Amino acid sequence: MNTRLQQQLNFLREIDKLKTVLRRTNLISDPARLENTAEHSWHLALYAIVLAEHANEKINLPHVIKMVLLHDLVEIDAGDTFCYDEQHNASKQEREMQAAHRIFGLLPDDQRDEFMSIWQEFEARQTPESKFAVSIDRLQPVLHNHATEGGSWKRHGIKRHQVEEKLLPLKEGSMELFELSNVVLDEAVQGGSLAE
Amino acid sequence: MNTRLQQQLNFLREIDKLKTVLRRTNLISDPARLENTAEHSWHLALYAIVLAEHANEKINLPHVIKMVLLHDLVEIDAGDTFCYDEQHNASKQEREMQAAHRIFGLLPDDQRDEFMSIWQEFEARQTPESKFAVSIDRLQPVLHNHATEGGSWKRHGIKRHQVEEKLLPLKEGSMELFELSNVVLDEAVQGGSLAE
Repeated sequence: MNTRLQQQLNFLREIDKLKTVLRRTNLISDPARLENTAEHSWHLALYAIVLAEHANEKINLPHVIKMVLLHDLVEIDAGDTFCYDEQHNASKQEREMQAAHRIFGLLPDDQRDEFMSIWQEFEARQTPESKFAVSIDRLQPVLHNHATEGGSWKRHGIKRHQVEEKLLPLKEGSMELFELSNVVLDEAVQGGSLAE
Repeated sequence: MNTRLQQQLNFLREIDKLKTVLRRTNLISDPARLENTAEHSWHLALYAIVLAEHANEKINLPHVIKMVLLHDLVEIDAGDTFCYDEQHNASKQEREMQAAHRIFGLLPDDQRDEFMSIWQEFEARQTPESKFAVSIDRLQPVLHNHATEGGSWKRHGIKRHQVEEKLLPLKEGSMELFELSNVVLDEAVQGGSLAE
């Protein structure tokens, strides 16, 4: 077998590990179980396809889809960093950069460079595509927590102002989804699943 | 909230159920656990991105990615049909068509029609994109069974000629991956994880 194909297969085998990285979000369809990062990435890709029309700016949808599919691969080494864990977030950037070098480095050079570039674009949040990708990445757990009687908000004692802060980037990606998220938070507070 | 956005959110909530549909394939990273169809679909999308250059014909990669992301949504209602279960396969087409109408029918009409069309294209295996999508869908469980000491082959007493028959469509999508799959089967038989 040629080296290039062998590198590609090694990468595809390695990333199977993303299925074992657990997030803090519960499934809506089985609230007793936490979502893993691989199935979360799949869900986000469908969010991108279905909700693309609500982006503030014209976006290259295939690029957004690639971005959400690979944006969390670094969690294979760096783990999922709970967005409300300030201490863990302080070391996130360095841990994830090391992970990106190792994991994308399994690929042939041209593909390694493409993946690294797309991941860094997501993290930098400067392009219309990355702003929209970050927006749906922030929206999805809110919809899950709302649908599972508070989910990780209740378990970790998260309050509305903390969630609101995490939702600010939606203004950059999609004002329509930002407004939706506020309606959801109103309902969550009224229903008792989120503390004021 | 407008009706269109509400329909889209209902669909995105409904498809969370794909994370609870179990396939027969074991994870490589945790062989004690079966893969679910949502994380499988994510994995296939990465297969498509990384292996696209090995397709027999020029393919529209974004279209292949969309196709693998949504091709198994019908399993929410129809369940996963084990490819070696002939009795269950006889009713597969009708069960999945009903499922497609219900699940894609949650979307606004234009998106419903787009999803239905892409799913039917996958099932018909006539375009370069669907031939390649089917190829990686057949290849991935073979690599997983090989990496997990036989996995579902051993559990269900599957023999090499049965696997070979399921791999024939790879000739249409990617001769290079077809040849790879034969090398893998040779190794699996030699290593005792697949019966001759």
